[in-house]
This record gives sequence, structure tokens and C-alpha cells, in this order.
Amino acid sequence: MSLDEDLDEARAVSGAGPGLRRARAWLSRAVEPGTIDFWRYVEDAGPVDAVRRLRSGQAPASIRSLVGARAGEDATLADLARAERCGARLLVPEDDEWPALPLQALALAVCDEPIERREQSDRTKALVPPLALWVRGPARLDELVDRSVAIVGSRASTAYGEHVAAELGHQLGERGWTVVSGGAYGIDAAAHRGALAAEAPTLAVLACGVDRPYPAAHGALFHRIAETGLLVSEWPPGCAPLRHRFLVRNRLIAALTRGTVVVEAAARSGAQATARRAQDLGRQVLVVPGPVTSAMSVGCHELLRDEELRAVLVSSAAHIIQAVGRIGDDLAPPLVGPSSPRDGLSDVALRVLDACPVRTGVSPDRLAAVAGCDVLDVLRVLPALELADLVEWTGTGWRLRPPAGKGGRGAAA
Amino acid sequence: MSLDEDLDEARAVSGAGPGLRRARAWLSRAVEPGTIDFWRYVEDAGPVDAVRRLRSGQAPASIRSLVGARAGEDATLADLARAERCGARLLVPEDDEWPALPLQALALAVCDEPIERREQSDRTKALVPPLALWVRGPARLDELVDRSVAIVGSRASTAYGEHVAAELGHQLGERGWTVVSGGAYGIDAAAHRGALAAEAPTLAVLACGVDRPYPAAHGALFHRIAETGLLVSEWPPGCAPLRHRFLVRNRLIAALTRGTVVVEAAARSGAQATARRAQDLGRQVLVVPGPVTSAMSVGCHELLRDEELRAVLVSSAAHIIQAVGRIGDDLAPPLVGPSSPRDGLSDVALRVLDACPVRTGVSPDRLAAVAGCDVLDVLRVLPALELADLVEWTGTGWRLRPPAGKGGRGAAA
Repeated sequence: MSLDEDLDEARAVSGAGPGLRRARAWLSRAVEPGTIDFWRYVEDAGPVDAVRRLRSGQAPASIRSLVGARAGEDATLADLARAERCGARLLVPEDDEWPALPLQALALAVCDEPIERREQSDRTKALVPPLALWVRGPARLDELVDRSVAIVGSRASTAYGEHVAAELGHQLGERGWTVVSGGAYGIDAAAHRGALAAEAPTLAVLACGVDRPYPAAHGALFHRIAETGLLVSEWPPGCAPLRHRFLVRNRLIAALTRGTVVVEAAARSGAQATARRAQDLGRQVLVVPGPVTSAMSVGCHELLRDEELRAVLVSSAAHIIQAVGRIGDDLAPPLVGPSSPRDGLSDVALRVLDACPVRTGVSPDRLAAVAGCDVLDVLRVLPALELADLVEWTGTGWRLRPPAGKGGRGAAA
Repeated sequence: MSLDEDLDEARAVSGAGPGLRRARAWLSRAVEPGTIDFWRYVEDAGPVDAVRRLRSGQAPASIRSLVGARAGEDATLADLARAERCGARLLVPEDDEWPALPLQALALAVCDEPIERREQSDRTKALVPPLALWVRGPARLDELVDRSVAIVGSRASTAYGEHVAAELGHQLGERGWTVVSGGAYGIDAAAHRGALAAEAPTLAVLACGVDRPYPAAHGALFHRIAETGLLVSEWPPGCAPLRHRFLVRNRLIAALTRGTVVVEAAARSGAQATARRAQDLGRQVLVVPGPVTSAMSVGCHELLRDEELRAVLVSSAAHIIQAVGRIGDDLAPPLVGPSSPRDGLSDVALRVLDACPVRTGVSPDRLAAVAGCDVLDVLRVLPALELADLVEWTGTGWRLRPPAGKGGRGAAA
């Protein structure tokens, strides 16, 4: 069936059918990820209509210019077939498996533009959700990232850094936490290998197609990762690991996980950039120190010296879990006696909760103003409040979740 | 002349004459340092009358019980002669050379009792000024500690820690900063040696007499320190380095310096205790990280993970000076344009300044309440405010310093 016929059919049915999946596949090749205006256009028009309008020349000129000559091309069937051949599949936001909650921080960042517009237009720094994800491996992405931590660091790592990354990966894996990293040389590989040694699934977010993971020397490692965990990429099969794609990719590593652990980083390094993306998204930044005599720890110490970043020094998996774990789940409850969902909430979380309106949802900016805290703090605590069933996203804003029995979720959405 | 005759003469004259000096010498042997009630009694009665009353049995029973049978003894002439033989002298609070400003934090701590009474009665944790100091060496104590930093750490240090301590000691010495430490094995010695290698005077605060510095194996090191810097002790010549004296001594290392740098520390170590004394006194706590695989860095990382402590990670002398240096003196001024003494003050410092009354001095507790900050913050910023001639101590409290020409300092003291 042609793409256009599939799209026509997709308009008639709802859900993630083949037409919608082909539309998302087409979009994932049409424009480089990390383009805010394009993501917004797809959100507004819906993926199927977005593709139809782009292919028929009806989309706004600014959006058409992003796609260019690729508007007339269609590699969707080839891409989907190529994915299938390597055991991969296309995951779309309409799927149940889509990690909606972790990626919500990216959607919020786009909606609220807390970052300067200049930065947003820099795709390597833009905080924008993926349009689709190509995933290879047996695990469910949403389940894998539910309790996950990113471990990132230098490719030119030292024996010390690799030892620590492997040890942390192993300990986290043993305790049921998913290690997410980029599959690169050095710290990334050591962290993945540590998790695999604990027979825990691990997740590599790639900057190229999942059928040709980079670096090639890690072929055996990627094969092992794909046996129990997942290889994930925004780029369709066959795409090359272009330099800027690593930077665009970093936001996903930060967004998918509850916290980012930096093990070794040189001054002004990519690992530092990932840590700052994590902070932008309200995620915990966790840093392993090292000898002050090591150039590979300079970036780590810079992160720990940055007061605004509020990075936490960690030297063990226990420290990491303490920082990112959930009360009652990973951590001992701080209170005894009759429990309420409010128990164990931080001061900031309580203030944000009290700032949430009952009916009409409001933006995190508004919550920050009412709660008297930073918008980043709001973004940091909202996921926990939602998980505790205390607040809900109406589609346009956040509000208190009505108690069970007094009207269901989404009644006003 | 007998002690009592000297004391009688001292009552007739003011200033630090021989009688007063003998009185302080007597007090320094009569009771172990760190005893709050005893220090208060001497403050109230004055050192000469305190000695007279103790020797004549007129002092309160609780104070007499602290001195016991030693009330009838007098080793002052022997102690002073023994000090002179090794090139040492007795420094008393009435001397110009007395480091009054640095030690003020201890006096404030006693006056305000910000620490629980239970802790105050533990001499090893009590924050109380020394009654006198035995000093050996050519340097002036007040000048030596004016720009000084403590470097402390484990005796069972690693090659890494010793390298870093020596390097920091050397760099600080080169830049005109005095390295203060305890003369112990390991980090202490490495820091002293680094300073000496830069031909900078360094200061060792001892837990025994300055004529028999401990450990004996550091005889050559102590000799070199005493050639250009100072050996300092609260204990009279001949006193042995009893175990608890090291803990009592630690508060002086913290108080005399602008900040305490911990280079290597095991879990629950003495260096951590010194760091906590530094925080109690409103001093900067600076910590050098190390490999997370090293037991000798566990204590350092614990300090850095303690949010209340607000310790700053440092990896170079530049970091240290940035943390403890004074605006305009050691640091680049943060503002250009017309300067006011308020320029460059931190938010907390400005709030404390605004909380200071014009006439009647108030306690740091009161300032903290008005400024809406912690009393430790107040203690941290008051020295800087006083140095900037913005506030003054009236003898009973802090107030704004009148501008020059509108009444002199201490007009209401």
C-alpha cells in the first residue's frame, strides 16, 4: 500500500495503526531530531495530517523548508523492513510502551520555553521530545526506564573511571535499576558492561541507526545489550553517527532517566553537557569525584563546584539510589504512623502541591510563581507528585488530582 | 618576686605587665583549656583577680574544684624560663599581637551558646577562647594568621593525599598565605613542608608544650617551622600530648584560620571533627576529593555530601583563595563603577548588615532573627563586615559602625 493510502486509512481509525506508524517513520527521516518548530507543528496537526500536508505542499513554508526535497521521498517501508531484519521496531508516542512520563519533561520544556530562545534554536541544546524512537531488543522501553539512571563520562577514561563505572553499573543492575548510557568507548561501555555482568538489562541511546550501532568495535557489546535490554535511537536504520547527533542525543539520556551520574569528565566535555541537560529537565545530577591530579576528573569537580547545578557527590550505588529512589519504593519511609500521600514529600514538593489548582490546569511557570520556587524545582517534583496520584496533567496544565470516587482522571482534559 | 607580689603590682597598673603575664601563665597550667565556666570566670574577674581569688580560696566552689590542689602551686617562673630557653614566649589576650579578631568567633560562641549545653560541657567540642598561648618562633601571631588557611587530614595518608597537601601548602605559601596545621604525621606534615618549600612561614598548633613538640620524629620539621613561622600551644612548656588535647586543640586550628581544607580523612576521623568545628565557628569548610576507591577519601566525600555543612570542593590553591579571600584584596572586585563598602557583599551579608542597629549592640542570635538567616551565617559574615568597617562590636553586641566623623568606634562601648 502506498504511504498516502495508508495515511488516508489512518485518518479514519484512531490508535497506533500502520498508517500512523508509517507517518511517524516518515517524520523521523524527514527532519533532524531536536527541531522545536517541527515538533510543535506535528503536535498541532497530528502526525498523519502533518505528513499529508508536507507531502502535498500545504504545510507552512517555514516547516516545508525544514523538510526540503525529502518531502517527496518515502523510505518508510524500507526503514521498517530494515528495522525488522535486525530485530528492531518503531515506537511512537501513541504506543502504550512510549515512556510518556519521563519524556514529559521535554514536552514541558518546549511548552514553557524556560530556556532562552537562542538556545532553543540550537538543536544540540534544544529540549524537545522525540517524534518517534527506533528500539532494538526484547525489553519494554517504558518499563526499562521506570527505574533507570544514566551513567555517562569520558571516552578517554582512566582505569579508575572504568573501574568505578563498571562497579556502579553492576551494583545498580543487581538492585534492579537500569543503566542507561550512550554505548561509547570508556565510561559508557564500562557502565553497560557492569550492568550486563549483573545480568541486568541495560539501555544504550545511540546517535545512529540501531542496525549499525557505533562504534563498530563495540559490535559484541551492542549485541549483548540487544539480547536483554534495548538499543534506542531517534534516527532511522542506516543513519550515520554524525558529530552533532551525539549532542542532540544527550537530552534523551538525561530525560529518560531519573538522574545522570557523571563518572569521569574532562573540562568542557560532552558528559558535562549531558549533566546540564539533566539539570534543565529537573533531573538529579550526580557526580563521582576523583583524584584532583587527574585531568579526567576536572569536569566532575567543576560540576560539583557549580552551586547552581546542585550536583550531588556520589561514591556508591547506595548514594545514587538514595538520590533518585522513590520513598516507600527504594527508600525507607521517613515517617511511621498513619501515612498520607503527602508524607515524605519535600518542602518544595508540598509547596508545589499546595499551588496546584483544583479545576483548571496551570503551567509550571505559574506553579513556580505561586509556590515561590524555581520553575526547575517545579519540573523536578511534578513527576513524583504525579506518581503519587496527587496531581495530573490535563493536556494544557497541571491541577490537583481529584480523590478516587470524586470524578476520574482526565474528566476536564 | 613572688607571684602574689607580682599580682598586687599588676592590679595597680594596666596593660600586659609581668604580673598579668604571670597570672595568665598560672591560669594556663591551672586548668585544662576548653573549660567554658573557667574561661567565663576569668573574663568576669579579670586574670589577676581570678588568680588571687583562686589562690586565696575566695573563688566560687565550682571554679575552685576545677583547679583543685594546683591552686597552691606556682610554676610560672619555671614555665616562663623554660619557654625563654627554647625561644618561646607567652602571648596573652592583653597583647597587641593577640589574634583577637580570629578568636572572636570563639568568644561569640561562648556568649551565645548556639550549641547545646551538653556539647559545651564536653571540652573536646567546646568552643571557648584560649586563656593564653605559648608561641615559639620569630613571627607575629596576629600577622601570621591574618591570611591563613588550615590544611588538615589523616595521619595515615596516601601518597596522593601527601602530594596534594604539599602542593596546596606550596601554592598557598607562594601566594602569601599562611598554612596552619597540627604538625602531625601525614597530611599535616606534608602541608607544612609544602609551605616551607615555598619559603613561607607556617604555623603548627600543638597539643603539647612548644619545647617538646610531638611527634618527636618531626623534630627537624618543628625546628624549621620555628625558624620562620610559629609553634603555638595552649599548654605550658613540658606538657605531654595527651589524647584528648588534640581534640581540644582542633578548635584553635579552625578559629585561627579563614577556612579549613580537609585533604584526606577516613570515615569518622579527627579531620572531620576539625571541619565541623570550623563550621561551628562560621569558617569555610573546604574539601579536596579523592578516588572513591580510597578509604582515606571517604571522610572527605562524607563532608561534601553533608548538605548542612555547605562544604566547598577545592582542587587547587586558586579555589581555596577564591573561597576565603577578601574582595579587593585577594579577589577581583565583582563590580566596576563607583564603589561602596556594600559592593560585593553577599545577600546574607547585606541582610545581616541591614539588621544591625545603629546604637545598642545586639547579639548574633538577634541579628539572625531579624535578617532571617541562620546564626552560623551571621557568625560567618560578621568578621567580613567588621573588616569593611561596616559594623562594630560594642563589648556586648554588634551594631552599625558610625561613618567616620560622626563619632568614633566604641563611643558607647
